Amino acid sequence: MGNIVKQLAVLGSTGSIGQQTLEVVRALPHRFHVVGLAAGKNIDLLAKQISEFKPRFVYYEDRETQTRLPSAEYEFLSLEDIASHPQADTIVIATSGKSGLSPTLAAVRAGKNVALANKESLVMAGEVITSEAKLHSAQILPIDSEHSAIWQCLRGETQKATQLILTASGGPFHSYSLAQLNEVTVKQALKHPSWQMGQKVTIDSATLMNKGLEVIEAHWLFDIPFDNIKVLIHPQSIVHSMVEFIDGSIKAQLSYPDMRLPIQYALSYPERLPNPQFPRLDWSSINKLTFEQPDLDTFPCLRLAIEAGKKGGIYPAVLCAADEVAVELFLSQRIKFVDIANIVDWALQQHQVIAHPTLEEIMAADAWARQRVMQHITGDNPC
Amino acid sequence: MGNIVKQLAVLGSTGSIGQQTLEVVRALPHRFHVVGLAAGKNIDLLAKQISEFKPRFVYYEDRETQTRLPSAEYEFLSLEDIASHPQADTIVIATSGKSGLSPTLAAVRAGKNVALANKESLVMAGEVITSEAKLHSAQILPIDSEHSAIWQCLRGETQKATQLILTASGGPFHSYSLAQLNEVTVKQALKHPSWQMGQKVTIDSATLMNKGLEVIEAHWLFDIPFDNIKVLIHPQSIVHSMVEFIDGSIKAQLSYPDMRLPIQYALSYPERLPNPQFPRLDWSSINKLTFEQPDLDTFPCLRLAIEAGKKGGIYPAVLCAADEVAVELFLSQRIKFVDIANIVDWALQQHQVIAHPTLEEIMAADAWARQRVMQHITGDNPC
Repeated sequence: MGNIVKQLAVLGSTGSIGQQTLEVVRALPHRFHVVGLAAGKNIDLLAKQISEFKPRFVYYEDRETQTRLPSAEYEFLSLEDIASHPQADTIVIATSGKSGLSPTLAAVRAGKNVALANKESLVMAGEVITSEAKLHSAQILPIDSEHSAIWQCLRGETQKATQLILTASGGPFHSYSLAQLNEVTVKQALKHPSWQMGQKVTIDSATLMNKGLEVIEAHWLFDIPFDNIKVLIHPQSIVHSMVEFIDGSIKAQLSYPDMRLPIQYALSYPERLPNPQFPRLDWSSINKLTFEQPDLDTFPCLRLAIEAGKKGGIYPAVLCAADEVAVELFLSQRIKFVDIANIVDWALQQHQVIAHPTLEEIMAADAWARQRVMQHITGDNPC
Repeated sequence: MGNIVKQLAVLGSTGSIGQQTLEVVRALPHRFHVVGLAAGKNIDLLAKQISEFKPRFVYYEDRETQTRLPSAEYEFLSLEDIASHPQADTIVIATSGKSGLSPTLAAVRAGKNVALANKESLVMAGEVITSEAKLHSAQILPIDSEHSAIWQCLRGETQKATQLILTASGGPFHSYSLAQLNEVTVKQALKHPSWQMGQKVTIDSATLMNKGLEVIEAHWLFDIPFDNIKVLIHPQSIVHSMVEFIDGSIKAQLSYPDMRLPIQYALSYPERLPNPQFPRLDWSSINKLTFEQPDLDTFPCLRLAIEAGKKGGIYPAVLCAADEVAVELFLSQRIKFVDIANIVDWALQQHQVIAHPTLEEIMAADAWARQRVMQHITGDNPC
C-alpha cells in the first residue's frame, strides 16, 4: 500500500472525539491532512486548532464571534458544505446530538468516507442514512469503540454475523440498587470508571442509554436484527465487543480503553498504522475479564432504547430527543438521575407511530419531543 | 458460494482428531465426502469407518491383519499415495508423532489443502514443509484450536501480526509446585480439565510441552519471530488464542472447547457452516476469563521447546523425539512426570548443531534421539 495522505474534515473538532482525532493527525502528519474544521462552542480552542492545522474551510456556529478567529487563508462554509467538499475525502462526524444528522447526510450523499462518532445520526435516521450510503457508495466507518470492534471482527468474513455482543462498562453505578441510584449526584455520574468522554455520553453511559443507542446503531451499521444483538456488562472495558458466526465461533476485539485507537482505525482503514502514543495491553497486569448480564430493571434506559429500536420509525428520534433534554435537566440539577428513564419512557408513550419517516418528520418529532419534555417537567419552552 | 462437496482423505481416522473429523462429515454429508481413510492401530474401528464412509482408498499399518477389514471396493495405498491422490482435494493429517511428516510432505508437494492436526510435521520440519507448500501452492489449514484461532483472527488482515498470544489451559497441574509435580501419577496426568484428546497430547498438555510445540508451529505457520509469540495460561479454555496488530488492537477467537469447531473451520474454509451439534458459549454462565503468565521454572518443557525453536535446525526434531520417548516411559510408569523435562533437556544437550537439515538429517536426528534417550534411561534399544 502506498502512503496515501487522507484529506480530513473534522466536524466537532473541539469536542472530546474531535480533539482525539487531531491527536491522531498530529502523531501521523505524513498520513493525514486536515482540510476542514468545524466547531459549535469552544472558539478559543478552534482558534488554536486553525493556527496549528491551517485548514482551508472552517465552520463556527456563532457567526458574530467568528471575527475572533485568526485571520488566515480559509473560507467559512456551512457544516454541510464542508462535509461534502470535493477537497475532503474523509469526514469525521464528531459533533454531538442531532447537529450531526444533516452533515452526515451531506457527506453520505457526496459518497465520502464518513468516520462516524455521532450516535444520533444513525439512531434517529438509520434507515435514511444507510440507504443513501448504499446509493452513493459512501462508506460509513464507525468510530465508537464497540462498533469499531465489531467492524474489525467482521473484517475478511464473507458471511453475516449470527450475533453481535456489545460490551458495556456498566458505568459508575453498575452494581447500584434502584434505591442507591435514587441518590446519585451529577458529580458521581460524570465520573466514568474507564473512558474519558464528553458530559452527555458520560451520563448516557451511567444510565446505559448509551449502550441502547449503540444497539440501534449496530442494527443499522451491520444490518443485524435486534434480537441478535446482545449486551454484556464488562467493567474492565478491555473487550470492546464480540461477534458470533454461524459455526458458533466468536471473535472479540480487545485493547486498552483509548478512543484514539478506533478513531485511527477508521481513518487509516484498510491499513493499520503504528502509533507509539497508544498504550498496549499488558497481560502481566490483566488477570481477569469479567462479564455480567445487564440489569434492565435497575437501568431501564437500555430496555427503552432497544424497544424503541425494534418499534423503529419515529421512536428512536423521540428517544434521542427526550434523552438529550432529560440529561440536560439532570446536569442542571433540575431532575434526579432516575428521572431520566422516566422522562424518556413518558415521551415514547406520547408520540404516535410513523413507520418510515422522512427526514422532515424525524426533525419534527425531535422538536416535538424536546418541547413536550420541557413543558412536562418545567413548564418552560426550550425553543 | 456454491455447495462444493470437498473430497477428504483422513489420515489417522481412528484417533481422537480423526474420529471428530468423521463426526463433522457425518453432520454435513452434503458438503464433505470421504475418499480415503488411514489408520495405524485400531483395526476394528477402521473396519466400521470403512463400512460407513465407503472410501476408495485405505491404508492400515499392519499389512498382515488387513484381511480383517471388510471386503469392499477400495484399494490399499500407502499414506503418501493417499495424501497426494488426485481424487482427494483436502487431506486431514491427524496421525500422531513423526508418522505425519512424510504424508504431510506428500500432500504439500501435490498442492493439496492440508488440514494439519499433526504437530510433529511442522515442529520437526517446518522450514521444509512451509517452503514446499509455497512452491506447490498448497494451503496449510491449521486444525489445532490455538492456530485456528490465530488464523481466524488474521482473516482479512493485510498486514502481519506484531504479536501472537497462544493461550494454554495450564493442564491438570497448572497451580502445582515442583514438589507436588514430583508426586503426580499417570492417571492424574491423563485427566485434562477442558479438552478430550489422545494420551500423548494430554501428557504434553500437562507438562506444557504441547504449548511449546505449538509456539514452534505458530512460528512456521504465520512466519512470526519467536520473540513475538507469547503464551498465557487461561484455565477456562474459552479464548483459544489472540493476535496483536501494529496499531495495538488485539483480536481473539472464543468458543466452547470442542475440537470439532476448528476441524470444521479448516474443512469448510473459507466458508463457515452451521452445525447444530456444536455447543455455543453461554454468556449467562461465563462470568470471568482469567489469564496468568506461565511458570517456566515449574514447567521447563515450555522453555525448552521455545529455546529449541529459536535455535532451529535439528533441535526441534530432537526435542520432539526425546519428548515422545519420555512420555511413553512416563505412561508405562518407568519414569516420573518431572523426568520428562529432564530427559528432553539432556537429549538437547547431546546433539550437535545442523543448521538447515534435510529431511534425511531430520529423520536421522529423530532416530538418534529416540535411541539415546532409551539407552540413557533403560539400557534398552527401541529400534
